[in-house]
Amino acid sequence: MLKHYKKHRAKVGREPGCAIHVGGHETAECKIRMLDYDAAGLREKENPTLDECERCQEQPGVSWLDVVGINQVDTITELGRRFGWHPLVVEDIVNAEQRAKMEEYDGYLYITLKALLFSNETNNIQREQISLILGASYVITIREKEDPILAPLLTRIRQDKGRIRKMGADYLAYAILDLLIDNYFLVLERINDRMESVEEELIANPAASTVRKIHHLKRELLILRKIVWPLRETIGLIYKEKEAFFQKEVSPFLRDLEDHVMQIIDMIEIYRESTSSMLDLYLSQTSYHLNEIMKVLTMFASIFIPLTFLAGVYGMNFAFMPELHWRFGYPLILSVMISSAIGMFLYFRRKKWI
Amino acid sequence: MLKHYKKHRAKVGREPGCAIHVGGHETAECKIRMLDYDAAGLREKENPTLDECERCQEQPGVSWLDVVGINQVDTITELGRRFGWHPLVVEDIVNAEQRAKMEEYDGYLYITLKALLFSNETNNIQREQISLILGASYVITIREKEDPILAPLLTRIRQDKGRIRKMGADYLAYAILDLLIDNYFLVLERINDRMESVEEELIANPAASTVRKIHHLKRELLILRKIVWPLRETIGLIYKEKEAFFQKEVSPFLRDLEDHVMQIIDMIEIYRESTSSMLDLYLSQTSYHLNEIMKVLTMFASIFIPLTFLAGVYGMNFAFMPELHWRFGYPLILSVMISSAIGMFLYFRRKKWI
Amino acid sequence: MLKHYKKHRAKVGREPGCAIHVGGHETAECKIRMLDYDAAGLREKENPTLDECERCQEQPGVSWLDVVGINQVDTITELGRRFGWHPLVVEDIVNAEQRAKMEEYDGYLYITLKALLFSNETNNIQREQISLILGASYVITIREKEDPILAPLLTRIRQDKGRIRKMGADYLAYAILDLLIDNYFLVLERINDRMESVEEELIANPAASTVRKIHHLKRELLILRKIVWPLRETIGLIYKEKEAFFQKEVSPFLRDLEDHVMQIIDMIEIYRESTSSMLDLYLSQTSYHLNEIMKVLTMFASIFIPLTFLAGVYGMNFAFMPELHWRFGYPLILSVMISSAIGMFLYFRRKKWI
Amino acid sequence: MLKHYKKHRAKVGREPGCAIHVGGHETAECKIRMLDYDAAGLREKENPTLDECERCQEQPGVSWLDVVGINQVDTITELGRRFGWHPLVVEDIVNAEQRAKMEEYDGYLYITLKALLFSNETNNIQREQISLILGASYVITIREKEDPILAPLLTRIRQDKGRIRKMGADYLAYAILDLLIDNYFLVLERINDRMESVEEELIANPAASTVRKIHHLKRELLILRKIVWPLRETIGLIYKEKEAFFQKEVSPFLRDLEDHVMQIIDMIEIYRESTSSMLDLYLSQTSYHLNEIMKVLTMFASIFIPLTFLAGVYGMNFAFMPELHWRFGYPLILSVMISSAIGMFLYFRRKKWI
Amino acid sequence: MLKHYKKHRAKVGREPGCAIHVGGHETAECKIRMLDYDAAGLREKENPTLDECERCQEQPGVSWLDVVGINQVDTITELGRRFGWHPLVVEDIVNAEQRAKMEEYDGYLYITLKALLFSNETNNIQREQISLILGASYVITIREKEDPILAPLLTRIRQDKGRIRKMGADYLAYAILDLLIDNYFLVLERINDRMESVEEELIANPAASTVRKIHHLKRELLILRKIVWPLRETIGLIYKEKEAFFQKEVSPFLRDLEDHVMQIIDMIEIYRESTSSMLDLYLSQTSYHLNEIMKVLTMFASIFIPLTFLAGVYGMNFAFMPELHWRFGYPLILSVMISSAIGMFLYFRRKKWI
Repeated sequence: MLKHYKKHRAKVGREPGCAIHVGGHETAECKIRMLDYDAAGLREKENPTLDECERCQEQPGVSWLDVVGINQVDTITELGRRFGWHPLVVEDIVNAEQRAKMEEYDGYLYITLKALLFSNETNNIQREQISLILGASYVITIREKEDPILAPLLTRIRQDKGRIRKMGADYLAYAILDLLIDNYFLVLERINDRMESVEEELIANPAASTVRKIHHLKRELLILRKIVWPLRETIGLIYKEKEAFFQKEVSPFLRDLEDHVMQIIDMIEIYRESTSSMLDLYLSQTSYHLNEIMKVLTMFASIFIPLTFLAGVYGMNFAFMPELHWRFGYPLILSVMISSAIGMFLYFRRKKWI
Repeated sequence: MLKHYKKHRAKVGREPGCAIHVGGHETAECKIRMLDYDAAGLREKENPTLDECERCQEQPGVSWLDVVGINQVDTITELGRRFGWHPLVVEDIVNAEQRAKMEEYDGYLYITLKALLFSNETNNIQREQISLILGASYVITIREKEDPILAPLLTRIRQDKGRIRKMGADYLAYAILDLLIDNYFLVLERINDRMESVEEELIANPAASTVRKIHHLKRELLILRKIVWPLRETIGLIYKEKEAFFQKEVSPFLRDLEDHVMQIIDMIEIYRESTSSMLDLYLSQTSYHLNEIMKVLTMFASIFIPLTFLAGVYGMNFAFMPELHWRFGYPLILSVMISSAIGMFLYFRRKKWI
Repeated sequence: MLKHYKKHRAKVGREPGCAIHVGGHETAECKIRMLDYDAAGLREKENPTLDECERCQEQPGVSWLDVVGINQVDTITELGRRFGWHPLVVEDIVNAEQRAKMEEYDGYLYITLKALLFSNETNNIQREQISLILGASYVITIREKEDPILAPLLTRIRQDKGRIRKMGADYLAYAILDLLIDNYFLVLERINDRMESVEEELIANPAASTVRKIHHLKRELLILRKIVWPLRETIGLIYKEKEAFFQKEVSPFLRDLEDHVMQIIDMIEIYRESTSSMLDLYLSQTSYHLNEIMKVLTMFASIFIPLTFLAGVYGMNFAFMPELHWRFGYPLILSVMISSAIGMFLYFRRKKWI
Repeated sequence: MLKHYKKHRAKVGREPGCAIHVGGHETAECKIRMLDYDAAGLREKENPTLDECERCQEQPGVSWLDVVGINQVDTITELGRRFGWHPLVVEDIVNAEQRAKMEEYDGYLYITLKALLFSNETNNIQREQISLILGASYVITIREKEDPILAPLLTRIRQDKGRIRKMGADYLAYAILDLLIDNYFLVLERINDRMESVEEELIANPAASTVRKIHHLKRELLILRKIVWPLRETIGLIYKEKEAFFQKEVSPFLRDLEDHVMQIIDMIEIYRESTSSMLDLYLSQTSYHLNEIMKVLTMFASIFIPLTFLAGVYGMNFAFMPELHWRFGYPLILSVMISSAIGMFLYFRRKKWI
Repeated sequence: MLKHYKKHRAKVGREPGCAIHVGGHETAECKIRMLDYDAAGLREKENPTLDECERCQEQPGVSWLDVVGINQVDTITELGRRFGWHPLVVEDIVNAEQRAKMEEYDGYLYITLKALLFSNETNNIQREQISLILGASYVITIREKEDPILAPLLTRIRQDKGRIRKMGADYLAYAILDLLIDNYFLVLERINDRMESVEEELIANPAASTVRKIHHLKRELLILRKIVWPLRETIGLIYKEKEAFFQKEVSPFLRDLEDHVMQIIDMIEIYRESTSSMLDLYLSQTSYHLNEIMKVLTMFASIFIPLTFLAGVYGMNFAFMPELHWRFGYPLILSVMISSAIGMFLYFRRKKWI
């Protein structure tokens, strides 16, 4: 299940801006992939030296440094020093427990958000902290682990599909955000699938576990909501502040991004209200069934308890019980019993219990 | 039932602005109807060539291109190229899963919204994505399927009723929006009809299915709400930005449109609160009836269980039970039983259980 | 009961600004009462001709045209033509399903709101659509039916009480609004009376009908709320835009009006929360009583069922049951029964069930 | 209990600005206390003539007129005439059913709010409408009844404690507001005391009356909230508009006042949520106990009902029942019964019912 | 447990700005620690005289006065006089029942907030009122008791770690706020631990005490929320007003602080919704179990009650009961009983009760 903010204990009392890895996935080493491209060509390099990385600031064309392993604090601190990042930016990059945010600094824009990934193996939603630094001609992404989330974009650059190779670093930054946000839709679809299966279960054959499943869905949606709301502000802020870092032709794309986030928020709200509604449905059904059960019990008890009493009376062993010796005592009492049963039955039918 | 946003899987990782048909109805071919009119006359043409379509930009008078079939991506892309639409606009037109929105571009206004249609055959609410492009002298509508939703307007133009032939493309765009929003009222009336029938059922004879019906109403209203809220912003935005594309005399009509959307939102909110209230009523009634049932059971059990015990005592076969041989043992025990029953009865009456 | 927006079906597809009577009361004919007054004198005329009506625009002093019968579409359209009203204004006047609103046009202000009236005969709240046109020197009110709602104001004008005859048309418009809003207080008092009686019933002797009464109160308050909220905006807007149509000395009166609407909203919110709270109280009480009932049942059953079993054992007819022939078998078993009953009784007392 | 807005019926149809006493306490006569003071000295006079009152406008130093008896409409109207108050101000002063508000007029500020007072005798919260007129050099308070709510301030003035005698009328107005708002804290403490006692009752020994007590607390807090929210706006408005009537050195005190009102609102919200939470706790506990009760009942019934049936079988009087004549029939059936009982017992233990 | 605002009774009627100790911890004496430092060196002194304290205003370098004991009203009043604080500031410092706030005065900034501390001994959350005065070159903290909450910062200054000794008083103020807010995370982690243990209990083995634990969690989170919300405004205000008291290089740190508070608010909201959701889960489970229990009871009762009645009939002692003398009466009645039991059993299985 999705978990929210984890342990902060290690950080209390430390110097602000002091880079300590918090939460998140740990990788054995820091992997870097460097792409330099323009409309004419593409140079790709695995694990360049930090000197090579630093040099990409001055190169013509667009550079994309994709760094994996936010627990490699030393490498990232060194990278930050060479690119001139504020200590707080470095601190935030290595901390997996961040709200989505956008911060403008001199010469670069710092964006951080959560990527959501549905793992088919574990049937689980996973999240990953992704930081993005947008400079004049470069984009640096720093993320928790080696996963295929950015692969489609890589393919587009390598195969020179669409307009990406013809545009600047700002469009690359947009394309990365767009890809990450598109993944949210996939995750929401999976949640929707699960909601539908729980709802079927709820109507067909509700069990104690059904409520717990609804409870889990609610919790997951609650956490998703807290992840997405600051994302909305972040994208809104990027759109508003676009002049400094984004060219005019990228602006409609940013607006499109905002629309997508709004749509995600709509979906989450609908899902949240639906789970609440499912819980109400569960309670109403349970309460309806309890009534049905109690009607059955009460009917049985109300019909047979008086009859049993009557039978008990004539099972008493008193020496002097004249009825016992009547010729038609037995048929008489039998017919009294039957008519009493029929009477009760009709009474319950009139009350619509049957 | 109304469904919300459908599958996005196909789009993840694609180039933004790349037109892929998502969701919605699929038609076998793309139908276009072209109307050119002014106060003097009307020229109507079914399925004009794209060249003819393109030419309508320069013609005097108002042109209305009504395109059906958002899954005909190639035709729409080509149309977009000829009219100079932004790639993102084309992408949005062929995507049936859009929030209502209004976007201003150089030379044209892009508006998209959901049409709601009540189908008498299937007794269902259907929705349709409708896009509207408003240029200086033309309006282009692109929609999912051939349905009669715009028919009344067509009739008004053909028969030259009212002021429509005397006004420009801006009034035509308004008239289309007005017609689509009027249809929302019809759909809400149907929902109201269903709510009233469910409420009668709830008061007269609630069943397990009643709760499920309320649950469905709630879900539908939830989705309607998510459809209408962005519509409100959209219309508000159109009204605010009216100077660029709408003439001054159309302005009161746009304000009227805003009023209608507000009224629709009011109705949806009232219906939503009413369904919640119906659920409360259901639960309260169920709980009241459970109490009534349990009173009956408890009364029967409390009166007869002690009596049965008493009868059981004198049904025991002990050799030495003096009471059994008393002359008036039987009448005595009978009167004990009757007075105990009466006592319990009076007790329950005092407790207002009867 | 108060109903909300009614059928719109007739209007879909019609020309906007085309006057069609929707909803509301129907009168056989259109009644007009014309009052011309100033500090010096008063001229009153029943059913003047439209020419006479039109002339009041140029007369000195204040003119008040009180038109009854919004279903008389032709008369109202003709009136609108002579006074130069926008077609949308005429359309709104004859439509009883409007939200409260204020619209500023060249030379006149259009205000529409709902009047609320408590009918002593039917013991019902009724509502009426009232439109008000404020020109430079005239006020025109158009309403659904002949009722006494404006009578106190008429009396004040006729008897020259207070400052009304000394002030302009703007003060007359204010006085009409003030009177209509004062009637809301009366209606809320009636609802309060009903709430108090339902609450007494709830505490003294709750029945199945009590919940339904709460349900109805909730619905009525919900609709009232939707009627009053737009009224708040309307009055606020009038107060803000006051310079154009209202003189400076009327301004404190408008502020006072705003206060009254705020007070009405406060009352409605309090009543709404109170009904919710009453429902909670009902559910808690029902649930408490269920527990009480079940305690009684469980106590009876738990005490007597084992005893009955014991009696049943010694009622068996086995040939060899030594206890049956013991001298003190019967007293022994009786004392076992009594002590078991006392034991159970003490156990339940310790559990605080008695 | 606190009641909200009372009867308005008398006012409907009257001239706006026409002073009619509404709601509130009625005193036999109007009492006035006049204080004139400056740093040098203090002149105090009980029941001065209206001429004396009027003269205080021109006197040097600060004048405080404390008027008791808002039902003495004539005196207050005359006072209003002499001080030049707007008719609507006079109307509001004599009306005990006002929302807190601040209105700025030429030359004076009109503030009205509710005082809250806890009466130790009746153990009740009482409220009182207090109006305050702040002129250049005078403050006039008009209130419902003779009570000790302003006594501490009077003492401070008489004994020349603190800075009050050295400051102007604006500080006096602030000091009065501060005192009234401090009393809210006292009232909230009383409510808190009651809440704590109800909570203890709820946990130790919930009864039907406990729910009703929670219901009453909720209602009172609801009304308190409606009293305090407009107060917040009022104080905020006074702070914002301070330049005209308050000197710069009083400004931090006004900000302090705002803080206090915010704190009161915080407390009310906490109390409101706590009562809701108490109701949830009540329902959960009731529901838990019902389960416990039903477990006891079900256990007894499930163990003994089959046994009783078995005993019944061997109590039948058939002529040919071979078991009855077996040598070990009785011990056999007894052991069957005992093992069945033990079996059921173990089953229920495994289900954790015991 | 966390308690909210305590007794205010002592303060009502007192002079505003009159320093009275309200609530909070009481220390026997006032402890002061004075630190003067700059990049070059550090002078630390325990309990300096007030003269020494006062002199720190003129010294070069940064001075930090850490005062413990808000109940030592005289010392703090004297300190206030020497540093020129407004009387209301002194009043607020000695009052432990404050909302977080920031107030700007001439020459100094007054900030007050709650510190939260988790005590390992009592397993309790404690709170402490901390006031902070930021002057041009000094920071004064005044707090309730001697606790280690500021110790990490002290260590950093003494050991000259990080940038703190190189920066001004504004950075020191920030560092103190940062440390206090970091402690909130620790407290929230503890609450999270408790929530998880309650949730496990809820799923494994819910008891009456589980609901009470949820109730307590809810209350604590409610109070935490009321503590943190004004903190958000306070930090936001500090960030906005930063120019006057904070240098430009401290600004990103303040923004970081705002982020942390937002994150804390997110966590509290998630926890609050989770506890509500836990309560829903509890109720649903209880209601599910009740149904299960009632099914068992009803099944037993419905199967055995008719059988017992049948056995009772043939236990009657009528002289003339022909069945009793049939050869196969007993086997016949036994098979009737068995088939009736099987029939009921199958019926309940079809109803999915088994």
